[in-house]
Amino acid sequence: MLTLFHHPMFATCRFVRLAFGEYGEELALIEEKPWTRRKEFLALNPAGTLPILLAEGDVPIVGATVISEYLDETRGVLKRDKRLFAEDPMQRAEIRRLIDWYLNKAESEVTRHLVRERVLKPIMPETAGGGSPDSGAIRAARANIRQHMKYTNWLAGTRHWLAGGRVTYADLAAAATLSVLDYLGEIDWREHAAAREWYTRVKSRPSFRPLLTDRVRGLSPVSHYADLDF
Amino acid sequence: MLTLFHHPMFATCRFVRLAFGEYGEELALIEEKPWTRRKEFLALNPAGTLPILLAEGDVPIVGATVISEYLDETRGVLKRDKRLFAEDPMQRAEIRRLIDWYLNKAESEVTRHLVRERVLKPIMPETAGGGSPDSGAIRAARANIRQHMKYTNWLAGTRHWLAGGRVTYADLAAAATLSVLDYLGEIDWREHAAAREWYTRVKSRPSFRPLLTDRVRGLSPVSHYADLDF
Repeated sequence: MLTLFHHPMFATCRFVRLAFGEYGEELALIEEKPWTRRKEFLALNPAGTLPILLAEGDVPIVGATVISEYLDETRGVLKRDKRLFAEDPMQRAEIRRLIDWYLNKAESEVTRHLVRERVLKPIMPETAGGGSPDSGAIRAARANIRQHMKYTNWLAGTRHWLAGGRVTYADLAAAATLSVLDYLGEIDWREHAAAREWYTRVKSRPSFRPLLTDRVRGLSPVSHYADLDF
Repeated sequence: MLTLFHHPMFATCRFVRLAFGEYGEELALIEEKPWTRRKEFLALNPAGTLPILLAEGDVPIVGATVISEYLDETRGVLKRDKRLFAEDPMQRAEIRRLIDWYLNKAESEVTRHLVRERVLKPIMPETAGGGSPDSGAIRAARANIRQHMKYTNWLAGTRHWLAGGRVTYADLAAAATLSVLDYLGEIDWREHAAAREWYTRVKSRPSFRPLLTDRVRGLSPVSHYADLDF
């Protein structure tokens, strides 16, 4: 079994867990608090970021997209119609564009800030940047949620899955991101019916189950978080 | 000939130009000012970011890493020992980690801020965020250059090319980033002999020539910028 260094409330880590889950491959999970900057952790990844996969031979594979490409090259290519990636280079580019949209663009405009302010700061020591949430940062991140929900709604309304006819990494990247925001009660689903219908389908997949039981100390999820028919 | 929407001072765009240059494939370049948010440009990429490649059939391929994967899948695989990527999934992961290091991590800690403050703000209209440079942002970005130079120096000192024995995308991503910072005179090469020796080698490659003649209105490069024996 391979090992994943992760944090339960990082969208990038959830994305990797979903991908392994879709392929029915269990991961040994080690929860890492990157802000403590443990020596052994920095030796695996001098960038000090998550996720890190310890692959065959305990070689560290660093970063969500890098792990997803590795997973595709070593497992995905054998999965035929269950492959989370496409064969065609143009379709692969579209899937990668959407991975990047959620795990880089939405992450840097919304998710990272809300997780830092609402989840991490209350548990981080002051020396590592902990303390009271910055309400300005929260407000700025919240103002950006709407465009990402609108875009997701548009994608879900024009395609059966976000990158086309099949479940791909694009759905997992989007669902990983939205699941973190949903845990925090940041999403108003009423305005985004197509996105909601799509998210209900993703959330019902067996790969999603472990994410729905994730809990963070001192911060309960919204009441509908684990509800498959919300 | 394919078309690239780019900006001459964006490391992500320089990376793509270098990659096509290494494969001896010319690109039609269209300089885009993303802050003007042209309608035709947003139709190609709703994220409003650069670079965008118009590939075969004028299909837009969005983002530097997405373009580099597409280029590898459609051209690189045929290039044998000139391929800018590895065959082995582990080595591919290491190359992708380094692309991410320079085009995402260094970009968000250093390059983006210095380019915005020193190159773009003076030419952007006030309504798009133009105006006087923010000296605090410049100071913060400059404080981060040293660790990236130290890391580059370490890589260059322990490997012939940054990801191993051959020129790969990792070298192009690093060189693209450093070339932007070098244009701006932000790099003190004296302290980083191994990085300097490696950069001199990259800079001497034919693919680099077009970058050395790039000029930005109102901002001349440092005197050694285009000097191959600096």
